[in-house]
Amino acid sequence: MVIARVLIDNKECYAEARKDGLYLIEGSCFNIVSIASKPYSGEYRLLPPVNPSKIVALGANYRKHASELNLQVNSDPTIFQKPITSLIAEGENIILPACSTKVDYEAELVIVIAKDCRKVAKDTAYDYILGYTCANDVSERVFQKLDGQWTRAKGFDTFCPLGPYLVTGIDANDLNIKAVRNGETVQESRTSNMIHTIPEIVSFVSGVMTLKAGDIILTGTPERVGQIVAGDTIQIIIENVGCLTNKVISE
Amino acid sequence: MVIARVLIDNKECYAEARKDGLYLIEGSCFNIVSIASKPYSGEYRLLPPVNPSKIVALGANYRKHASELNLQVNSDPTIFQKPITSLIAEGENIILPACSTKVDYEAELVIVIAKDCRKVAKDTAYDYILGYTCANDVSERVFQKLDGQWTRAKGFDTFCPLGPYLVTGIDANDLNIKAVRNGETVQESRTSNMIHTIPEIVSFVSGVMTLKAGDIILTGTPERVGQIVAGDTIQIIIENVGCLTNKVISE
Repeated sequence: MVIARVLIDNKECYAEARKDGLYLIEGSCFNIVSIASKPYSGEYRLLPPVNPSKIVALGANYRKHASELNLQVNSDPTIFQKPITSLIAEGENIILPACSTKVDYEAELVIVIAKDCRKVAKDTAYDYILGYTCANDVSERVFQKLDGQWTRAKGFDTFCPLGPYLVTGIDANDLNIKAVRNGETVQESRTSNMIHTIPEIVSFVSGVMTLKAGDIILTGTPERVGQIVAGDTIQIIIENVGCLTNKVISE
Repeated sequence: MVIARVLIDNKECYAEARKDGLYLIEGSCFNIVSIASKPYSGEYRLLPPVNPSKIVALGANYRKHASELNLQVNSDPTIFQKPITSLIAEGENIILPACSTKVDYEAELVIVIAKDCRKVAKDTAYDYILGYTCANDVSERVFQKLDGQWTRAKGFDTFCPLGPYLVTGIDANDLNIKAVRNGETVQESRTSNMIHTIPEIVSFVSGVMTLKAGDIILTGTPERVGQIVAGDTIQIIIENVGCLTNKVISE
């Protein structure tokens, strides 16, 4: 199922996104009580598909990307956080901070957590996954190198485009993933190239910190990351998951 | 004013903490409508003094601590996040994960943000500070070195003791700060030894990410960090701010 989170009359609601429109959900993405029989015809604003209490992300989870940025690959995943204030929805603008020098796109598959959990075993990990969406792990490379810690480089407001939708009921272990800048494919791989698999990631992260329903894990980016500049349109496209489109503007 | 956040009948409320007890607040710490005329006499559980949407922390903000851990000191602050699931209150246990090797205490002064803000100028920073509290930035040193990113090392559940109270109306720029392990002072400095001052920190962090009311910034730890083991009692004591006490247990 493809689920949108929308703002209608200043109220957050969920809807099933079908080809002919949005069918409003009674309940939430975690607990669908019923679905409207007709598409919604009023005005709405698309939100990031979930409202996480935290964003966890993996660094260096595709070998060729780790090589191109000279990132260390350990046997355990390298995790970091992006602040929830960095989230934007499909169609919102990525704003390049005035202090930034080189801002890159990074196409990433996102795991959405279904329910509060801690220390999930690998073989039960799918019980705790609600579905998947796309993210752009926007990163400022000068600060990333200078600071050592990646929080500033990856934490500016608008640096976590997410969506457009939450997609449930799919297998995400071998999907085409790409970034398309101004219509040209600039990054392309398959999620099967991830060093740490989806169940391994959920098990590892939940072994460190309690995950809450709606929390998201960005699973790392493949090789060929590159710069975005004001005026660009950048899309993250993952097979069966969706196409996330954002424009880039200067502050 | 000294403000506690407590759970009464499963409901979160705030109270002024005076010598003779807790005086319940109508409203919240952000908006005190009125204060009870008599102390509360029922049962309650102390919570971390605020419920932040995010925890930002500074690394290497005391020169002697940066030297002892060989941390790079840049002209800009080095920031990282701790997950909100790492928070515990006064009196709760720090749990050493089974996978941990060497877990250290770190005494830190905490800035509590008063209202949503972005790009705060240094000379108006105090308008956005509600008050201060104490934190223990508990850190696992093997993972900290191995991962490069500090999220795992500093992000385990229970690794952010906070409190006991929020203290408003004080000047926190030159206070005695110490850690006391099993009754012995193991870390001691003054907040005036911070490399980046309180207004500089609020200005810098809010220049990267929007801060929300109740968000907290841990301002870094002085020299002489050291290990805690199961059975220890560790206290973070900051002059005029409070004494945060937690026991350490094994998982």
